[in-house]
Amino acid sequence: MKTYLDCLPCFLNQALRAARIATDDEKMIKTILDEVGMMLKNIPLDSSPPESGRLIYRKVKEITGNLDPYNKIKKESTQKALSLYPYLKNRLEKSKDRLLTAIRIAIAGNIIDFGANWDFDIENETYKVLEMNFAVCDYNGFKNKLDKAPKILYIGDNAGECVFDRILIEEIKKPVTYVVRGVPIINDATYEDAVQAGIDGVATILSSGTDAPGTILETCSPEFKEVYKNSEFIISKGQGNYEALSKEKRPIFFLLKTKCNVVADDIGVDNGDIVLKGIDDYIP
Amino acid sequence: MKTYLDCLPCFLNQALRAARIATDDEKMIKTILDEVGMMLKNIPLDSSPPESGRLIYRKVKEITGNLDPYNKIKKESTQKALSLYPYLKNRLEKSKDRLLTAIRIAIAGNIIDFGANWDFDIENETYKVLEMNFAVCDYNGFKNKLDKAPKILYIGDNAGECVFDRILIEEIKKPVTYVVRGVPIINDATYEDAVQAGIDGVATILSSGTDAPGTILETCSPEFKEVYKNSEFIISKGQGNYEALSKEKRPIFFLLKTKCNVVADDIGVDNGDIVLKGIDDYIP
Repeated sequence: MKTYLDCLPCFLNQALRAARIATDDEKMIKTILDEVGMMLKNIPLDSSPPESGRLIYRKVKEITGNLDPYNKIKKESTQKALSLYPYLKNRLEKSKDRLLTAIRIAIAGNIIDFGANWDFDIENETYKVLEMNFAVCDYNGFKNKLDKAPKILYIGDNAGECVFDRILIEEIKKPVTYVVRGVPIINDATYEDAVQAGIDGVATILSSGTDAPGTILETCSPEFKEVYKNSEFIISKGQGNYEALSKEKRPIFFLLKTKCNVVADDIGVDNGDIVLKGIDDYIP
Repeated sequence: MKTYLDCLPCFLNQALRAARIATDDEKMIKTILDEVGMMLKNIPLDSSPPESGRLIYRKVKEITGNLDPYNKIKKESTQKALSLYPYLKNRLEKSKDRLLTAIRIAIAGNIIDFGANWDFDIENETYKVLEMNFAVCDYNGFKNKLDKAPKILYIGDNAGECVFDRILIEEIKKPVTYVVRGVPIINDATYEDAVQAGIDGVATILSSGTDAPGTILETCSPEFKEVYKNSEFIISKGQGNYEALSKEKRPIFFLLKTKCNVVADDIGVDNGDIVLKGIDDYIP
């Protein structure tokens, strides 16, 4: 996805939120905003937003010296999500279409996003998403493709959300490689977060190597790129990965809840909608 | 009022909205955002927000060549407000406390603000404000001071809102000088807008001379400053004037509806609240 004009003020808002998480020093926060303001002119509209997000959050780390400001928040999100796990498994047991319910659950987990949002209530939002209608639902294509795929590449998004992903992975019943970010960036899941969510019991965890809040391929490790290139079925979670991969010609299914107007407009849905969207030429 | 950190992303959002009103050229809008981004480092937090607003909207004019992008919007707001005038006068006739109702009406008009807001429905919002409770209401002080004042200085805010101000002026029944901006800035009222609202029939219209979206005294004409200095009773409408004048030691009563968290927090109320607030040492 390209960078839209509306992304530019949003970058500054994100910098402010991240800076406040990383430090209480108002002067330092002002410096961060000044620096991010000066970075705007170097952001081409044909780049994808996580490319800039990467540089902006790096600036916050650089100036505050805080390399993982969201560490505590991530752990809390995982704990909260783990406490919902039995309820979510129970919902699955009672559902008519287990796979579709597991997909819904995975999407419900995508509400845990400290980049796009700030105020959310994991529990209540989860209940809501489980009852929502899909704005885009390439479910038949997803099922057909999944049936034929020997293994799955599953690109995760946020810490806490991993617990919800685990439920979909448990339902898929095929070998899954679960992809995490290379280093801490916002509240995105790293290796440690995936393990805390119990992903190591159900999938092989692989770092993409990126330090961006989305799978910007140029910033990923050769090892990841090789796995990605050879994957016949890819699940991509969340906005950041959508923004980074939406123009790819690969068999990707995007699972997300839209959390800003820009991404919603790009997909052609309303903000807040839930989406299961395949890349056109790759939907069987 | 000082500039808060949250004002900085807001400046960029305001620049984007204003740029889009002024032009359809995406490259030009990007240039505006780039330039405003670079301006952030020169904004001291101890300046008041309209001081920066002035420079930002000036940049939009400079780059687009459009000196009055809100001209059409302002005329429409005035027409809409004039269509509500008979209804508002009728509300006044039926009210128990005519002065307080006229103050409410003047505050209701303050919803017409294309700087802070974007989507609003003048008619419905007016009905709502007329029923709301005040979060701050220095009404007794206002009445006492008004009784003793030989004349009133009334600092207006937005086009369209002038029609609502006219109703309060008609109720005051004392000589009023109504202050407008020196040049078009956002949808703030200029001489022409005040005349279209019928203010010339009920008050003397005076330009403050400023090109800022608030009465920044250093940017006002010597003539206005003289009148201001000698005024014993000043009504100040809206956020921009509050931001510019809140630290003054003068007999000012601020009438406004808060439209952002920053101003609301500064006053100590919630966003969306209605306020009639005098400057402490000047409330009798």
